Amino acid sequence: MAVYKAPVRDMKFVLHDLFESDRRFAELGYDEATPDLVDAILDEGAKFCENVIFPTNRPGDRQGARHEHGRVRTPDGFREAYQALTEGGWMALAADPADGGQGLPGALAMCFEEMLQSSNMAFALYPGLTRGACVALHAHGSERLRRDYLPRMVSGEWTGVMCLTEPHCGTDLGLLRTRAEARDDGTYAVRGTKIFITGGEHDLTENTVHLVLARLADAPPGVKGISMFVVPKRLLRDDGSLGDGNGVQCASIEHKMGIRGSATCVMNYEDAVGYLVGEPNRGLACMFSMMNHERLLVGQQGLAQAEVAYQSAVAYARERVQGRALNPARRTGKAADPIIVHPDVRRMLLTARANNEAARALLVWAALLVDSAERHPDAAERERAADLTALLTPVIKAHVTDYGFDACNLCLQVFGGHGYIAEWGMEQLVRDARIAQIYEGANGIHALDLVGRKLPMHDGRLMRRYLETLDAFCDESASDAALSEFSVPLKAAAGRLRDATAWVNAAVARDPDETGACSYDYLRLVALTAFAYMWARSAKVALAKLEGDNSGFYRDKLTLARFYMKRLLPHTRSLTDTLAAGADTLMELEAEAF
Amino acid sequence: MAVYKAPVRDMKFVLHDLFESDRRFAELGYDEATPDLVDAILDEGAKFCENVIFPTNRPGDRQGARHEHGRVRTPDGFREAYQALTEGGWMALAADPADGGQGLPGALAMCFEEMLQSSNMAFALYPGLTRGACVALHAHGSERLRRDYLPRMVSGEWTGVMCLTEPHCGTDLGLLRTRAEARDDGTYAVRGTKIFITGGEHDLTENTVHLVLARLADAPPGVKGISMFVVPKRLLRDDGSLGDGNGVQCASIEHKMGIRGSATCVMNYEDAVGYLVGEPNRGLACMFSMMNHERLLVGQQGLAQAEVAYQSAVAYARERVQGRALNPARRTGKAADPIIVHPDVRRMLLTARANNEAARALLVWAALLVDSAERHPDAAERERAADLTALLTPVIKAHVTDYGFDACNLCLQVFGGHGYIAEWGMEQLVRDARIAQIYEGANGIHALDLVGRKLPMHDGRLMRRYLETLDAFCDESASDAALSEFSVPLKAAAGRLRDATAWVNAAVARDPDETGACSYDYLRLVALTAFAYMWARSAKVALAKLEGDNSGFYRDKLTLARFYMKRLLPHTRSLTDTLAAGADTLMELEAEAF
Repeated sequence: MAVYKAPVRDMKFVLHDLFESDRRFAELGYDEATPDLVDAILDEGAKFCENVIFPTNRPGDRQGARHEHGRVRTPDGFREAYQALTEGGWMALAADPADGGQGLPGALAMCFEEMLQSSNMAFALYPGLTRGACVALHAHGSERLRRDYLPRMVSGEWTGVMCLTEPHCGTDLGLLRTRAEARDDGTYAVRGTKIFITGGEHDLTENTVHLVLARLADAPPGVKGISMFVVPKRLLRDDGSLGDGNGVQCASIEHKMGIRGSATCVMNYEDAVGYLVGEPNRGLACMFSMMNHERLLVGQQGLAQAEVAYQSAVAYARERVQGRALNPARRTGKAADPIIVHPDVRRMLLTARANNEAARALLVWAALLVDSAERHPDAAERERAADLTALLTPVIKAHVTDYGFDACNLCLQVFGGHGYIAEWGMEQLVRDARIAQIYEGANGIHALDLVGRKLPMHDGRLMRRYLETLDAFCDESASDAALSEFSVPLKAAAGRLRDATAWVNAAVARDPDETGACSYDYLRLVALTAFAYMWARSAKVALAKLEGDNSGFYRDKLTLARFYMKRLLPHTRSLTDTLAAGADTLMELEAEAF
Repeated sequence: MAVYKAPVRDMKFVLHDLFESDRRFAELGYDEATPDLVDAILDEGAKFCENVIFPTNRPGDRQGARHEHGRVRTPDGFREAYQALTEGGWMALAADPADGGQGLPGALAMCFEEMLQSSNMAFALYPGLTRGACVALHAHGSERLRRDYLPRMVSGEWTGVMCLTEPHCGTDLGLLRTRAEARDDGTYAVRGTKIFITGGEHDLTENTVHLVLARLADAPPGVKGISMFVVPKRLLRDDGSLGDGNGVQCASIEHKMGIRGSATCVMNYEDAVGYLVGEPNRGLACMFSMMNHERLLVGQQGLAQAEVAYQSAVAYARERVQGRALNPARRTGKAADPIIVHPDVRRMLLTARANNEAARALLVWAALLVDSAERHPDAAERERAADLTALLTPVIKAHVTDYGFDACNLCLQVFGGHGYIAEWGMEQLVRDARIAQIYEGANGIHALDLVGRKLPMHDGRLMRRYLETLDAFCDESASDAALSEFSVPLKAAAGRLRDATAWVNAAVARDPDETGACSYDYLRLVALTAFAYMWARSAKVALAKLEGDNSGFYRDKLTLARFYMKRLLPHTRSLTDTLAAGADTLMELEAEAF
């Protein structure tokens, strides 16, 4: 069976030990985020997610969301779980107090979010998108819109959704056709059909705020003619209470591979009343506030599913006896040993775990960078944090979901035939995790974003800063002999990344197709190196704390770091070969010859 | 939508051009297998699979097999499809004429099998297991058993299934508990419960022959006390007609991630009448005749699903317009270009295809080796063929299913969000393909088989012969300048494999845990090199046929070979690092610390 205990111990390590959050939170003006409060929130959040949310995961997949006469019913138990989530104040952790939020650090909210996404990924999408919509509305909405909508979205009383995709236009938003026509009263009539709208209709709340991308009548073609609108499911009366329904209809929901408790809706907007958010024709920029937030959350889904998969596979591998240990010294003396004695079973488990712990650290670092970019007292530090965030967001979105899916499959494999049987819960993790590689921009698009947009930005400043960050760590570790088994491989990988970056920059200048030809391997190279950086930093902390460590926690961190450096990081060697194979290997075949 | 046209052109290339089957078939005494007959069978087989079997695939997944009052109903359409399969004589292609078979080469049957498995993997399991059961019964059954059962299994009038797994015993058959008690009439009373019995009960035929592993009363413990029994669902009267039901009951079927049209049964044998096959306590050896056959077929499932996934993704990538080509010269002048212009989309498609064509060649080669091991006039050649078959079987089973699953996922990714929606058919391919990595021995077990059993066998003769085969090709190609872009990387990969083999042999002698610690990476290294060998040989043929090639077929083969050498084979570089990371990286963590 799938089992889950929130990895609170590791979260505390990442926050307190690895990133010294106590100091950092204070530096960023989060005065209330004392160590005690942080720990209490993690402990309570863990209990809440394990006991209230996780039990809804399997039944929710079996029952799925149902479309009945234009309404969507979420699986049994989702309404109660959602109510408990909002009543516990879990929705509002990191939101601005001005909007009714608790004003806590994003890094702390990121940890809670991991627990929530582990407990039920399909369920977590409803509040997850709501928080992203709050970010966009907070940043770009008029005072009136913020006042009318934000507090009730921050609390979770209403949900928020993002509405971009249309049948003929997914990645390429320039093709978007939904129209918005100005009315005399300053509102807009929104007309069009959107597909793949996660949570577009449901029964968890009385109202849902749709952030819809549409074209104004006089809009220029392409992405420069897209505006963003608030289109509520139900209109507000002047006193702010809920009034009539708006022209917002759910035509159907999709039958999907996974996240079946999440309603993926076809939405029709039929002269729906919309309110412009931000400037006309600048809707894509507004939506990016939401998307950058969601991209980290979607990246985290890979980790969240892989964490449950790992824990479940460990429980099975400890209990299932089958075959004898290869090394006689490890045998139990019974007819068969628990399969956790087998090196190849351990390879699968350790691969999942070493990636999970690195991903967790990287996500928390990213959350700290997002907060630093906004709140750090030093402008130079704000700029640096913004640069690293921009660089790491596509890397996290794509790589964490890629390895996360692979990790779920490795952990399913540990179960043998039982992994393939629905009642054991492992195959649901695989099916659920698969979507994270696709939505919020397919992973190949993020690779293109990295190479095509982020690398050239500010004359290469983003990658330069990233490499400087790695170099600084390697330099300060150079004389630390105990750390060298971690810092030396990191330095080598950083060197490969530097060389590959030079190769990519030259190749892209020569042939535009090289951007797409090398992008996927290049992203993976950046990601493997980022994970190595997280492990080397973790190892440094662990070495410092090793003495007096009775729990074995820090010793095990070093074991995992070692595993990562020796068994996973070496993949960077072949990536430098394949990414430099050149575009011709991909472009030579005629389209007709495929 | 998932689409499928049998890759007959490529099969003809592999048979006629690559392996010179005309000459080889004659050499092995397959006098009837003339080129014309071979082509006619491929052409007719393609039509049959595309038109009769493939249409049952999606509905079969939606409806699934159903368990009702101890009986299993296959999805609508399966009965008619099965009847057409048997009436067309497709079941009997490669069976011995003495058993009612057509006596055609296994390599030809292997090609038909690919088409059948592409068209409906869940359906293909019923006849596929039957053919495996025929192989075992042909090799080990008494004259009476062969006479009573084989002709009606060969024709498909009855099916055959293999019954190994029990709730507490999958990989580790030594733990098996099903008992067989001798009766006075020379039969046995079989008692026990088996799980995961594919096709254990169904409505396609009136009778099913269960090959059941069980223990005799006086059997020694462990795998040396296992015997094999024929346990028919219905007993035969003296005149050979169907008589009473036997004590064979289907208690339930599993709800699975995929292959939902295939009934995966819990079977109870309650004093069922069984007939001993072969010698007492030698049942595992008998079952291996079937398992070695099935392992190649299961390996082929990875290719078969990946082929459909590839074709479907190509069709989508040609039609779906989204975004502009990176290189302005490739743009269509419309608002968006078909996504097949994007290098990263091509990376995904070409990865699937380059692996598919190599896997197809490798499977046909394996089938030729199986036939050669049995029928080649030269004893030395029989031995060599048996050695290579033994070495390649685990490699094919594990690697073709691994890459096949990955390829299905890559091709699903090409569809973006639509790939995740059931009606497009891509997610079914992923769900179906996943089982092939698990059943018929989980892939990690095959890696252990390769390193722990096949490498040391006959003092390393198997791998030596394999490397000699690669060396011979590289040596004879050394002076061929046009071939060097393929033969040089192959030679380098073979060199890495030779070094890795030496490392593995030394490591395993030092520490038994190294067997399992390096096995997975080692298997992958062997597999990538085998694929490179198939591509280098294909390139050699293509170069020779390039002149006068109006279709572009041979030019495209060279493009694919180039892609493989530059983009996929380099992965061997990092594998040599990771496999030599040593067992300590896996064994250091205490079981409690996971």
